[in-house]
Amino acid sequence: MTETKTATERINIERLMSKIEALGQVGGLPGGGVCRLALTDEDKAGRDLVVSWMKELGLKVTVDEVGNIIGIRAGRTDGAPFLMGSHIDTVRTGGYYDGNYGVLGGLEVIACLNDARITTEIPVGVGVFTNEEGARFAPDMLGSLAHQGQLDKEAALGAVSIDGKVLRDELVRIGYMGTEPVGSMRAAGYVELHIEQGPVLEREGITIGAVEGVQGISWTEVNIKGVSNHAGTTPMSMRCDAAYCAARIAVFVRELALRMGRRQVATVGAITVWPNLVNVVANRAKLTVDLRNTDNELLKQAEAELAAFLEQLKQDEKVGIETRKLARFEPVDFAPEMIDLVEREARALGFSVKRMPSGAGHDAQAFAPNCPTGMIFVPSVRGISHNIEEHTEPKDLEAGANVLLRVVLNRAGSAA
Amino acid sequence: MTETKTATERINIERLMSKIEALGQVGGLPGGGVCRLALTDEDKAGRDLVVSWMKELGLKVTVDEVGNIIGIRAGRTDGAPFLMGSHIDTVRTGGYYDGNYGVLGGLEVIACLNDARITTEIPVGVGVFTNEEGARFAPDMLGSLAHQGQLDKEAALGAVSIDGKVLRDELVRIGYMGTEPVGSMRAAGYVELHIEQGPVLEREGITIGAVEGVQGISWTEVNIKGVSNHAGTTPMSMRCDAAYCAARIAVFVRELALRMGRRQVATVGAITVWPNLVNVVANRAKLTVDLRNTDNELLKQAEAELAAFLEQLKQDEKVGIETRKLARFEPVDFAPEMIDLVEREARALGFSVKRMPSGAGHDAQAFAPNCPTGMIFVPSVRGISHNIEEHTEPKDLEAGANVLLRVVLNRAGSAA
Repeated sequence: MTETKTATERINIERLMSKIEALGQVGGLPGGGVCRLALTDEDKAGRDLVVSWMKELGLKVTVDEVGNIIGIRAGRTDGAPFLMGSHIDTVRTGGYYDGNYGVLGGLEVIACLNDARITTEIPVGVGVFTNEEGARFAPDMLGSLAHQGQLDKEAALGAVSIDGKVLRDELVRIGYMGTEPVGSMRAAGYVELHIEQGPVLEREGITIGAVEGVQGISWTEVNIKGVSNHAGTTPMSMRCDAAYCAARIAVFVRELALRMGRRQVATVGAITVWPNLVNVVANRAKLTVDLRNTDNELLKQAEAELAAFLEQLKQDEKVGIETRKLARFEPVDFAPEMIDLVEREARALGFSVKRMPSGAGHDAQAFAPNCPTGMIFVPSVRGISHNIEEHTEPKDLEAGANVLLRVVLNRAGSAA
Repeated sequence: MTETKTATERINIERLMSKIEALGQVGGLPGGGVCRLALTDEDKAGRDLVVSWMKELGLKVTVDEVGNIIGIRAGRTDGAPFLMGSHIDTVRTGGYYDGNYGVLGGLEVIACLNDARITTEIPVGVGVFTNEEGARFAPDMLGSLAHQGQLDKEAALGAVSIDGKVLRDELVRIGYMGTEPVGSMRAAGYVELHIEQGPVLEREGITIGAVEGVQGISWTEVNIKGVSNHAGTTPMSMRCDAAYCAARIAVFVRELALRMGRRQVATVGAITVWPNLVNVVANRAKLTVDLRNTDNELLKQAEAELAAFLEQLKQDEKVGIETRKLARFEPVDFAPEMIDLVEREARALGFSVKRMPSGAGHDAQAFAPNCPTGMIFVPSVRGISHNIEEHTEPKDLEAGANVLLRVVLNRAGSAA
């Protein structure tokens, strides 16, 4: 079989869509969307379905000690496989595509290889990683981090869910406490197909995102202590107004992002004030600041500017301000060769492409330090995700999966 | 008895304090403070106690059709009495002084007149007005407004409490549905002794506030409709962030007050955002704006500037903004002759005095359109009120009551 032959292979969108819809029924919500929190009965049913598909496709399926499922298709030679994959756990009101598209897109690529009787040079696999969302257990990306030796097995197994269950027990309960040693599998490379979960591709009319990396994330909770006073009788000069300080911080955070420009984003998504009454100056406020940048030095600069602003505000407004770091992830850069490859294969198929960072975390970032890693994004309608209205057009799902197929053929090599 | 004689009369602070403490036990809370919501069993017990004191002092006690209690001490001539008074209902976690001090200070003045066997030229009375706080029934100042013909009797009687009871029924239940026609009593004047409920007198080291009037109040609820989006994947330029808009409004409101200066105060006390998550751009926010000024034209200007700002913000940030008026009271001016009198008598007693507006509403404002009306303020420790920590030093309570005594002697005339 020649290079010319493989270059003409295309995925079957009907087959892919039928799997997406079938998996979407598992944990399906009455009003649409899916609730398949990690290691629940719904997750077990989803896993069972995916494993049955893997077996139908002839993959050798293993489950490791934290429940990661890997299906491998043999190559001409043994050795480290080139992996596709993602996750099938969802948030409480999730959609059909987040995670599932990467897993099922991978299975569709395997199906195409089977149909075309292509034997790749090295093995090709599809991974389903445990608890990517972090909606039931912390941390998120638990399975892929453990898989790539970046999270201790015991720490992963001891994670406690929001409903008070230990991850180890839940793995046993649903029958996904596997025997494959976790953290030992080397991959020749990893590519993850995923919906963008943001509005950029749709707004710019672009089909494929060649993901350059994952933004670094800094989450800070800010607690402000003011003094409660009567809104009518307290002169402006005598106030220590916690709600006003919260507002100043939210405005500062927006201005900071605009001033820094480029890939700095900054959000105050949560604000709570006490006693929250129309005629009482607030004596307490709590808010969160979400800062993200693809450049760790710039992210550190944003954090430092926020800290300096809070210090000044504390003095100016005579309030107490305490901060608590809720999360801090360094930015992850994907391999230039993988970014280039995604871009090149997309263009070869006639699709418009944009190099872009991922604003959200993904399993791919666990692989990035260990092997050439990349991601392929397709547009999210109205940028909506983690929501039952999450949607991507079938033509875009088809485009992304075709790019995935070509990337796999390129990296795994078509030997026969 | 000569003017010289009456000028030397002084109130008895021990007697006043013993009444304040006794009334404070009625509805007393376990951790301190008082809960005596209008027309509850606790309010009935407080009324019974005050009425018993009025009768001990020889006052002729009447109860009108909305439960206002008036105790009258006869003068040399008949006719309209000069009234003192306030209320004894409290907020849910109230203190010992708000309202109670004006009523019991009035009774202490009566006791002094009795002790000194002074007969005033015109009758002198003490009023206890129903539901001043508005914490159980709306509107606040219900009793005094009805008493001065500014609130229809049927509207007052039909008011429904936060616990679903009709005011008329609750008056009957506690035995305070009186027979005295409400709205018919003319007063020769009214003066109300009250704690400041703000921090100004204490901070400035001043003993007596000669109250010039009550600020006008404008309360607006602002509802903002944005678009929920991922905090990591949504570029700053593509956001319709309801939380950010709420913050902008809170900052604008502070700046507006500082820019207008003088007696403009402005507060955003309540802010709620949805879904209130660290990594989601808020799609909805609700906040309240409390604007107050002693000058109605300036208050209107502040309202207009807020409206213009909201209109601009709506366009700039591509959000929906809707407003709802929660309350609007015009400012009330007290009689210059009464303000002057309070100031003069305070100085005659050697107290420092400050002319100042009231930031909160009081029963006095119901009288202001109908007769010469004034108020005497004394300092509130740390400006705290509507709180179990509400406190005023006994020496300040004594000073205020002595000013009240001299104001009454001046306005009612000492005939014997």
